[in-house]
Amino acid sequence: MTKAYYSQDIHGPFETFDLGDFELESGATLRGLKLAYATFGTLAADKSNAILFPTWYSGTNKILEWAYIGPGRALDPEKYFIILVNQIGNGLSSAPSNTPSPFNAARFPQVTIGDDVRAQHRLVTEKFGIASLALVLGGSMGAQQTFEWAVRFPDVVRRAAPIAGTARGTVHNRLLVETFIDAITSDPAFDGGWYRDAGEVHRGLRRHGRVFAASGFTQDLFNTAGWRGLGFSTTDDFVTGFVENHFLPQDPNNLVLLATKWRNNDVGRLAGGDLAAALARIKAKTLVIAIEEDVFFPLKDIAAEQALIPDSALRTISSVWGHLALFGVDAGYNTAIDAHLAELLAN
Amino acid sequence: MTKAYYSQDIHGPFETFDLGDFELESGATLRGLKLAYATFGTLAADKSNAILFPTWYSGTNKILEWAYIGPGRALDPEKYFIILVNQIGNGLSSAPSNTPSPFNAARFPQVTIGDDVRAQHRLVTEKFGIASLALVLGGSMGAQQTFEWAVRFPDVVRRAAPIAGTARGTVHNRLLVETFIDAITSDPAFDGGWYRDAGEVHRGLRRHGRVFAASGFTQDLFNTAGWRGLGFSTTDDFVTGFVENHFLPQDPNNLVLLATKWRNNDVGRLAGGDLAAALARIKAKTLVIAIEEDVFFPLKDIAAEQALIPDSALRTISSVWGHLALFGVDAGYNTAIDAHLAELLAN
Repeated sequence: MTKAYYSQDIHGPFETFDLGDFELESGATLRGLKLAYATFGTLAADKSNAILFPTWYSGTNKILEWAYIGPGRALDPEKYFIILVNQIGNGLSSAPSNTPSPFNAARFPQVTIGDDVRAQHRLVTEKFGIASLALVLGGSMGAQQTFEWAVRFPDVVRRAAPIAGTARGTVHNRLLVETFIDAITSDPAFDGGWYRDAGEVHRGLRRHGRVFAASGFTQDLFNTAGWRGLGFSTTDDFVTGFVENHFLPQDPNNLVLLATKWRNNDVGRLAGGDLAAALARIKAKTLVIAIEEDVFFPLKDIAAEQALIPDSALRTISSVWGHLALFGVDAGYNTAIDAHLAELLAN
Repeated sequence: MTKAYYSQDIHGPFETFDLGDFELESGATLRGLKLAYATFGTLAADKSNAILFPTWYSGTNKILEWAYIGPGRALDPEKYFIILVNQIGNGLSSAPSNTPSPFNAARFPQVTIGDDVRAQHRLVTEKFGIASLALVLGGSMGAQQTFEWAVRFPDVVRRAAPIAGTARGTVHNRLLVETFIDAITSDPAFDGGWYRDAGEVHRGLRRHGRVFAASGFTQDLFNTAGWRGLGFSTTDDFVTGFVENHFLPQDPNNLVLLATKWRNNDVGRLAGGDLAAALARIKAKTLVIAIEEDVFFPLKDIAAEQALIPDSALRTISSVWGHLALFGVDAGYNTAIDAHLAELLAN
């Protein structure tokens, strides 16, 4: 099931870029690192029109394509060369699920958002010869990567749009992510990451989905049956058919790796732990975008970081879908995010 | 450990009232039902000064005494005769943990908030001969019992103060409570409720505590280390030493029974499912009290129900402790709740 899920059939077409042995921030070597990516549009002769868009937790290039890209959208392939890059550990890029023994499964080394961004920088420069990005954007863990890009490579990133995410996790955010991780790893079938078949861990994946849903969506979404437009019949039908169904075909070790990366994220480490100093390095014109009802990454926390970024502004979007409006299921969110991104790209 | 916890040493002094075989709303019989209760103050000759205060989820009479009762407090034993009654299933009153085989553990019948209130009515009338209560109040599941009292016995309840709870659970509240239940029952040691020793289920109890804490307190409490005043050193020290420590000595079946009762609560069933019709029956002067930051029982949901109660008003209290300000750990909350209760009792 896992193998079929992480396939060209479901998430393609995508390409892979082979980085060979890759030294991680931890000092460990990730052998044979491959980044999976998909591109849209044509790179201009002067290479000035490139946009980089990394994935979020449990997502791949496919959901980004579906929810954000198209003619007439802000991310218009007729104008821009858009690179959707899968983060390390998501199962299309190198991950516990697709790495050969002995570094597979529970032995896949822990990676950081910084590892992702350094690897993506090689993709951008070595594969495409791009020295400057018109825009880096991403939602949730994609926002974490966007902040990392803007701080680490200030002369490469001309514009940045971190959406519904922070540069450093709050104490509460980390506690919440711990409950997601624990929901999976506490399943006896997880067996320390040494399950034979990912499908055997379905109880943990289902539990993870329900804990995730309880704060990923707003209370109003449940209380007003705001999911009806998607064709579900009851709360349980929605939670099972939409949320559990999203996680069930995924690999438990992959999700635990990604969630751990999410939990540990802190751009401040690039400036010796000083978040303000790190964010002050950003040269990109930055539009920090928050979802007003977001429980994972509350507006207040996002606004506090935005105030530390020199050439930046804050934009907010309201959605009954809360954090998971990112998925493109709310037409109001989709219209608003396009307006904000178009505004940023026009300047 | 469980036996030592549910003891006079820790929660006493308390008395027990024996109701014999008790027919439940479900039609099942709860054999030898005992309600544990503690009283403070002296019942007036005309029996006009009685206050009833039932427990919340995982609480006993002791925390209510500690957090709400004392000379100079609104619930002053020099003025009132205060009955703190333990809800069915909490381990002092009849519960899975203290009922003899074969109706013990997983075979203890499921009870409802209505069962509690009918049993408490017998305690109040048969044991004390009280026909009219000056006040019924409670927080969280105690608020559920307060609503039930006011709707079911409108001529008995002169005043009511439901705090941080609703008369009918929202869809989201039920989903959240399901995640609490699942955190316990998914522990293999739970074994369908047939564990030999409650301590063996400690992983599930700890997990339950963490999921509970992630929304029971506010995000700000964690992000500002608002727990420092209690003497903890780190987030993990607080979560382990305060939250896990609260649940660890308790019986898993008891908690699951209570949580299920919480989840199923709906006063509307007393009027054929019509919540508005049920609440319209309330004759008590009612002060509905909400905690503004409460995620378990949001202000919005509480306000919507208050609007349906004839002689009622809404009061709100702000606390960085969120729902769990009920525990009496926030001096600001304690002062505010006393002011509101004093206002209600003065009229």
